[in-house]
Amino acid sequence: MCSLPGSRKPLLRVAVTGGTHGNEMCGVYLARYWLQNPGELQRPSFSAMPVLANPAATAACRRYIDRDLNRTFTLTFLGSTATPDDPYEVKRAQELNQLLGPKGTCQAFDFILDLHNTTANTGACLISEVSQNPFNLHLCHYLQLQNPGLPCRLFQFEPPGTESYSMDSVSKNGISLELGPQPQGVLRAELFSQMRAMVASILDFIELFNQGMEFPAFEMEVYKNLGSVDFPRTTDGHLTGTVHSRLQMGKLGGGALQGWRGPAQPASVYFLETAGDCHVKDDPCYATLQLRLDHQIVHGSQRH
Amino acid sequence: MCSLPGSRKPLLRVAVTGGTHGNEMCGVYLARYWLQNPGELQRPSFSAMPVLANPAATAACRRYIDRDLNRTFTLTFLGSTATPDDPYEVKRAQELNQLLGPKGTCQAFDFILDLHNTTANTGACLISEVSQNPFNLHLCHYLQLQNPGLPCRLFQFEPPGTESYSMDSVSKNGISLELGPQPQGVLRAELFSQMRAMVASILDFIELFNQGMEFPAFEMEVYKNLGSVDFPRTTDGHLTGTVHSRLQMGKLGGGALQGWRGPAQPASVYFLETAGDCHVKDDPCYATLQLRLDHQIVHGSQRH
Repeated sequence: MCSLPGSRKPLLRVAVTGGTHGNEMCGVYLARYWLQNPGELQRPSFSAMPVLANPAATAACRRYIDRDLNRTFTLTFLGSTATPDDPYEVKRAQELNQLLGPKGTCQAFDFILDLHNTTANTGACLISEVSQNPFNLHLCHYLQLQNPGLPCRLFQFEPPGTESYSMDSVSKNGISLELGPQPQGVLRAELFSQMRAMVASILDFIELFNQGMEFPAFEMEVYKNLGSVDFPRTTDGHLTGTVHSRLQMGKLGGGALQGWRGPAQPASVYFLETAGDCHVKDDPCYATLQLRLDHQIVHGSQRH
Repeated sequence: MCSLPGSRKPLLRVAVTGGTHGNEMCGVYLARYWLQNPGELQRPSFSAMPVLANPAATAACRRYIDRDLNRTFTLTFLGSTATPDDPYEVKRAQELNQLLGPKGTCQAFDFILDLHNTTANTGACLISEVSQNPFNLHLCHYLQLQNPGLPCRLFQFEPPGTESYSMDSVSKNGISLELGPQPQGVLRAELFSQMRAMVASILDFIELFNQGMEFPAFEMEVYKNLGSVDFPRTTDGHLTGTVHSRLQMGKLGGGALQGWRGPAQPASVYFLETAGDCHVKDDPCYATLQLRLDHQIVHGSQRH
């Protein structure tokens, strides 16, 4: 019988994947480091396996070669008959599915932690595809308690279609950890150190779960995407404005703009037109979803 | 007879080039904007011509396609017989040499202003290949007086070989304007606005020069490169450390580290090793060259 998300079986087969996007450098350098120094990923009940997910894109310092690997783990791509003309990332997704899956089967890894960076000023963010998954909620709450000075937000990502497609969807349960702001292709020391410490905390949490620790009930905020706003553009697609410096918050901002806000906070996006005018759009961006969590994660002989 | 750097002939044929590196977005977007709105580059005595220098690299949002365009304006490349197998940037350098040169001839443009960004926290920086060129020194001093709150440094760049190879070396006189920090491929509103304003000031200075204005003597600091320090690496070239957050100065830093310092200031580079140790190297970086400037630029009937 399979161990499904929310079950109480210990997570023994755990992978930490970096370089799923080849120009998000914290995960690239951590994966390379752990491949040489795997001891940092060991805990008493399990040893997490480091994986450099997209070696070709990493070598080219690009997000991907042919198509976004982190959108390629659908059953359609994973189950298609391989041909020499397949896009590189389709071939690599099938390899990773053999290594860490197969997706949706009892043989799949128990947990994949997939590491990402963003140019946006998001801080620390966990991205979960599974709606209100109790394990992931408790994991995020544990990180918040471990680092009270560092907000760690849980972003509940709902893929546009009906099927999950991300790296971590190959395992029975999984999550992505995204830190920003960091430019593409650049490794910033403080984000590297922060990601390394957060991965250690996540493995500590899995160890506590495996040991049967009981986690008390709590309430937390979960974020979801309420929409997105494109840049103003010419008819041939070129930008005619960029993110207003008021929204950069003294940090990067970058190509993608992500704003966190609570339910009562209005939000707007300001674009600076190249002619010097300021252009405002209402934008819901990421709004909080108030979530009352009565779940507890218990394991083995522990009870609710 | 040619108008040489330091001569008193007005500069009537002026070009402003952006996108010489296709992922340095301030110049890319300014060049595109001016191609649609050339009036901003007009002054009473001349109209500067906007040029998108590397359209293919700009379309790919990369520094270059086959080789660095800004290292390709040597007489060897410019004078070679064209073949279909030439690297893209060699073909493009020859096109630009036809448009703005030929380099080293009387037909060449009087002045090229080449626009760049860097991921390093350099602020505003003028880069001049010509040693102690009086026109460029006065231009930089004019910008410093126009923007007392914004340090604008003059970096005297000496190419490793004997021959100049940059975009602006095609014209009789030229200079590069570089603003940072900005991630590659990202357009930051405040740097875009700052570059636009500085280009306007540079064109204003050329107009004053063309009108015969006399500029008084002054002293200024000029920076030169005293050396560079590579990242610590594994034997196969991968980084084993990155720039210490103490050197990021709360800003980007990024792939390239550039530090400005005066003659009496010691400098060191700190690398954060992935194992957590801190590794220090002495590093001269960019040091100032005290320069006493007694020249005056005069034009027409004006005298020293």
